[in-house]
Amino acid sequence: MEALHQKIRELGIVLSDQVLKVDAFLNHQIDPQLMKLIGDEFAALFKDSGITKIVTIEASGIAPAIMTGLNLGVPVIFARKQQSLTLTENLLSATVYSFTKKTESTVAISPRHLTSSDRVLIIDDFLANGKASQALISIIKQAGATVAGLGIVIEKSFQGGRAELDAQGYRVESLARVKSLAGGVVTFID
Amino acid sequence: MEALHQKIRELGIVLSDQVLKVDAFLNHQIDPQLMKLIGDEFAALFKDSGITKIVTIEASGIAPAIMTGLNLGVPVIFARKQQSLTLTENLLSATVYSFTKKTESTVAISPRHLTSSDRVLIIDDFLANGKASQALISIIKQAGATVAGLGIVIEKSFQGGRAELDAQGYRVESLARVKSLAGGVVTFID
Repeated sequence: MEALHQKIRELGIVLSDQVLKVDAFLNHQIDPQLMKLIGDEFAALFKDSGITKIVTIEASGIAPAIMTGLNLGVPVIFARKQQSLTLTENLLSATVYSFTKKTESTVAISPRHLTSSDRVLIIDDFLANGKASQALISIIKQAGATVAGLGIVIEKSFQGGRAELDAQGYRVESLARVKSLAGGVVTFID
Repeated sequence: MEALHQKIRELGIVLSDQVLKVDAFLNHQIDPQLMKLIGDEFAALFKDSGITKIVTIEASGIAPAIMTGLNLGVPVIFARKQQSLTLTENLLSATVYSFTKKTESTVAISPRHLTSSDRVLIIDDFLANGKASQALISIIKQAGATVAGLGIVIEKSFQGGRAELDAQGYRVESLARVKSLAGGVVTFID
């Protein structure tokens, strides 16, 4: 997606061979117009997949997910990383290890909002090692729902997440596929 | 805002005299169409206020904030509750106590995204005791920026947050003002 590639080239900061910082437009400051374009693109890609729900993880997945949900006319659920006092019922949950934050956390979704008849599109800001995506897949399966595919804003293709999802047979649509961050330069696939 | 009142009546769950659970459309599952209406309403209310940035807190503030930013054509910044490895520079921060979660947390914004020329609209999902709003106000002032007003989706008017902001002279626009949750019933002001 050219508008996204451009924004990454302009405002992305390569912190290391592994870490691309995009806090100027995606995961701290957010560009709403770009999110709208991203949501429209995901909606176009998955419009024939019979999506009934979108699932993402707080916090950076919410903006692209909500714009996709607006276009497709379906609700968005964001998995929570911590249990709050107003989410008290039995929760569907899975553990996710973050390589960026070097912490393990539990992500959870209320079973009230996900049923076995749902066809779910997972949206997330980044796909790296795929731990967050695998946790969401686990939760969706616990609800008996179907994973119809994954929409990723930025994929770090040199890490293992994409290959694992491909091997599992999931449809993954990434709007920017980063081949390498070597030498402080962002190189895209294609 | 009638569409919001209706949604609260339909799907809101009164957990106690103090706690209204709206995880069916606002802070766990999100209704994107309703968020669009909410964003358009905030944008209409503040269209003449010279807003240059919107500030919110992760995670539930992001959806209404992004829709407001889309309409007004300005970036959205969400304050983070934890420092991640990719947000490494000196941060503007403030402490916020959550009565719901009974925890104290630090919220932070990168000074790279907020300058003294910014006129900021604060958007949040709830206003109760106002601790989150006061923390955001503190951060915005640390940046030397101006707080142009606050847009709140649901205000619990029987708690102290609104009165304190009024006394401080801030413009607060709440789309649903809850007078009472007594007896398990949601009563609105007006």
